[in-house]
Amino acid sequence: MNRQAHILIKNGIVVPKALSATWIPDGAVAITGTRIAAVGSGLEMAEWTAIETIDARGGIIMPGLINTHTHLPMSLFRGLADDLPLMAWLNEHIFPAEASHINPETVGLGTRLSIAEMLLSGTTTCCDGYFHEDTVAQAVLESGIRAVLGHGVIDFPAPGVPDPGKNVQTAGDFCDKWRGRSALITPSIFCHSPYTCSAATLKKAKAAASERGLLFQIHVAETKAEKEQIQAEHGLTPIQYLDRLGLLDAKTLLVHAVWLEESDIELIAARGAAVAHNPESNMKLAAGIAPVAAMLAARIPVGLGTDGCASNNDLDLFSEMDTAAKLHKVYLLDPTRLDAGTVLDMTTSSGARALGLEQEIGTLEIGKQADLIIIDTQKPHLTPMYNPISHLVYSVRGADVRHVFVAGKMLVKDRSLLTMDLESLLKQGAEFGRTVSQ
Amino acid sequence: MNRQAHILIKNGIVVPKALSATWIPDGAVAITGTRIAAVGSGLEMAEWTAIETIDARGGIIMPGLINTHTHLPMSLFRGLADDLPLMAWLNEHIFPAEASHINPETVGLGTRLSIAEMLLSGTTTCCDGYFHEDTVAQAVLESGIRAVLGHGVIDFPAPGVPDPGKNVQTAGDFCDKWRGRSALITPSIFCHSPYTCSAATLKKAKAAASERGLLFQIHVAETKAEKEQIQAEHGLTPIQYLDRLGLLDAKTLLVHAVWLEESDIELIAARGAAVAHNPESNMKLAAGIAPVAAMLAARIPVGLGTDGCASNNDLDLFSEMDTAAKLHKVYLLDPTRLDAGTVLDMTTSSGARALGLEQEIGTLEIGKQADLIIIDTQKPHLTPMYNPISHLVYSVRGADVRHVFVAGKMLVKDRSLLTMDLESLLKQGAEFGRTVSQ
Repeated sequence: MNRQAHILIKNGIVVPKALSATWIPDGAVAITGTRIAAVGSGLEMAEWTAIETIDARGGIIMPGLINTHTHLPMSLFRGLADDLPLMAWLNEHIFPAEASHINPETVGLGTRLSIAEMLLSGTTTCCDGYFHEDTVAQAVLESGIRAVLGHGVIDFPAPGVPDPGKNVQTAGDFCDKWRGRSALITPSIFCHSPYTCSAATLKKAKAAASERGLLFQIHVAETKAEKEQIQAEHGLTPIQYLDRLGLLDAKTLLVHAVWLEESDIELIAARGAAVAHNPESNMKLAAGIAPVAAMLAARIPVGLGTDGCASNNDLDLFSEMDTAAKLHKVYLLDPTRLDAGTVLDMTTSSGARALGLEQEIGTLEIGKQADLIIIDTQKPHLTPMYNPISHLVYSVRGADVRHVFVAGKMLVKDRSLLTMDLESLLKQGAEFGRTVSQ
Repeated sequence: MNRQAHILIKNGIVVPKALSATWIPDGAVAITGTRIAAVGSGLEMAEWTAIETIDARGGIIMPGLINTHTHLPMSLFRGLADDLPLMAWLNEHIFPAEASHINPETVGLGTRLSIAEMLLSGTTTCCDGYFHEDTVAQAVLESGIRAVLGHGVIDFPAPGVPDPGKNVQTAGDFCDKWRGRSALITPSIFCHSPYTCSAATLKKAKAAASERGLLFQIHVAETKAEKEQIQAEHGLTPIQYLDRLGLLDAKTLLVHAVWLEESDIELIAARGAAVAHNPESNMKLAAGIAPVAAMLAARIPVGLGTDGCASNNDLDLFSEMDTAAKLHKVYLLDPTRLDAGTVLDMTTSSGARALGLEQEIGTLEIGKQADLIIIDTQKPHLTPMYNPISHLVYSVRGADVRHVFVAGKMLVKDRSLLTMDLESLLKQGAEFGRTVSQ
């Protein structure tokens, strides 16, 4: 029986699921519409034909990567200031630059630069929080990438929300505008943190997410100073404080979660909340090392994130995986921790679980969204290859990504962006940089 | 006055010295023969013409990177085994694979694969130690890269040295054969470690280096177990033990130096010895975190190294810089440590000092060897650019290297290797992998 797909990607090494630590040496994937129609060995897939066939010889075919924490427009400020104490970095550099230069137009530019970087390094889904998020959504839609997007809630005047009294309303309006509008965009509520939002704001923001059945994202327990402040004010750890306010449940994504007690880990697990781990940002800002191995042992869904690229300074999840795998080994002085399969899982199916999208993305399985990438392994740093999963975590870099598909649509072909005008984007980005430097 | 060079690279951002944290926005470099003839702004360089002119518009022109610790042939075993305890990794995987598959021919193949990877990621000098080092030297010479090379000394039968009684003799013979033969190759003695060599071997090996005026490389204080073993056997720290044997001086390169007492740091500084810091290898093998900030404060020359790429798993010094800068920040919970300029210095002039080559390489200055690289910054992850030094450490990756020169000779042009047949190399590498997997 001849079976017909729209796109057939064949002759590649297929890594359908990270955690299984298995792969199909000579595999193929068939795509029909936005979804995966079949996955298997070349033999099993021999009956498939397609309108478009892609020869992935010498390549790895795998799920697109999922970045569980970004602030997309911050690409505009990458490298503006580094190697500074967190508060000096924020108050003397980032906040003034945002106040002077952030508006809907520049948010669109920064978002497009970040999307270009993500697509070219194999990321097909991100979970973002910023301001002027409506402009972010527009850029996401135009590019064809997939995203969970939240408009920021903070108790200060913010870009596009001069009156903090309207912060939850604005964030909720964003969700209502974008819900159901595109399969690529899942709206969400992004609440900044327990130290920048009052208890009343935190509860209102969580309610805004819950009543719509949407994900609630919040930075929490990032620094020791934050933990000490919350403990001084409330006599609770940051996690206990969020729990007392009723903020922890299966629709909550805790970002950072560095300064945790053992009891905090149990509490997060008991409530079913998820964590976005951002090792490079936590290292660069000297925030600390999150107890990821313990969280995974407690079966908390942990995804990997880059954070905004002004504190990283990139959006390359391949290097983030490499760093995560190594950081926890040396932190625990145990080379068996966070093995390659576990870390690859954090950027694929565990990342999807953390965002509540595990029915749609994170593995190559029939019926799931056709979000997948093809890695070119014909490189000296990937030759020979004994174990594709080891290479994906420890040796592949973003620049090895050759083709990228989201929802069955090819967005990157032979390292060229098909939906974005890169040349014009780079010109506008450089021009923006000159304006800031003046 | 018109001045004539062989090669003129112009219209780039020139970063002549890492530590100065300054750059020439519109700069040029003139090369005559193997050396730099002039460096300056476009205006200052207006009088220069050349046989070949390279337009580096939109690029950064900087010294080639220096990798102070490699085992080049180990590219053959990258990803063969990971996420294992060090002794299981070595004894059950790496040593048996070496015993079965390492011979002069495979050493040549592995070395060429590693050189291809290094050149394509901007490394122009490495400091290597392995066996069959004569074959390594031949491959270095053919490729045109620069290297410090040492034949391994160890008190076990080793590839090419079945009788350990001849280890120092063999290593010395290698030095005599290669001394003065090519400006690209600086021979050296590579002594494995204080736990795999007797006191007599250690002293003989150091004498073999000293009498020839050559660099003595040795792995030391890599793991806690090693420190405990040396302390149990000799009642000394590993560094004190080497010092008691007379092994510490300005011609000694201590590799790893993770498990140090404060007094060890003082001792290394007092003797003028240098250190090769391998953060990613130390993390992946869970060896520990070397006290690099304290070593730099004691003015010890510290270079950066990748180690063999089977324990990293790559030879990309750009990602190694990124990791080093971040690791020490989080280790010390201080985001101001190992700032970008300091880390860039570790792969350029401080790395050159660690190898005793600071008169020849590590900065772009008149009279120095023309070892330089040009980075393509026309990428979304490098746009906008406020500070080239920040970008070089935190955002540039090996794949952004466009052109590479060593000793005034172009070895990489527009990301193509000019002195190596990459296609044939990848074919042979894949074939070797199939042999090992069988």
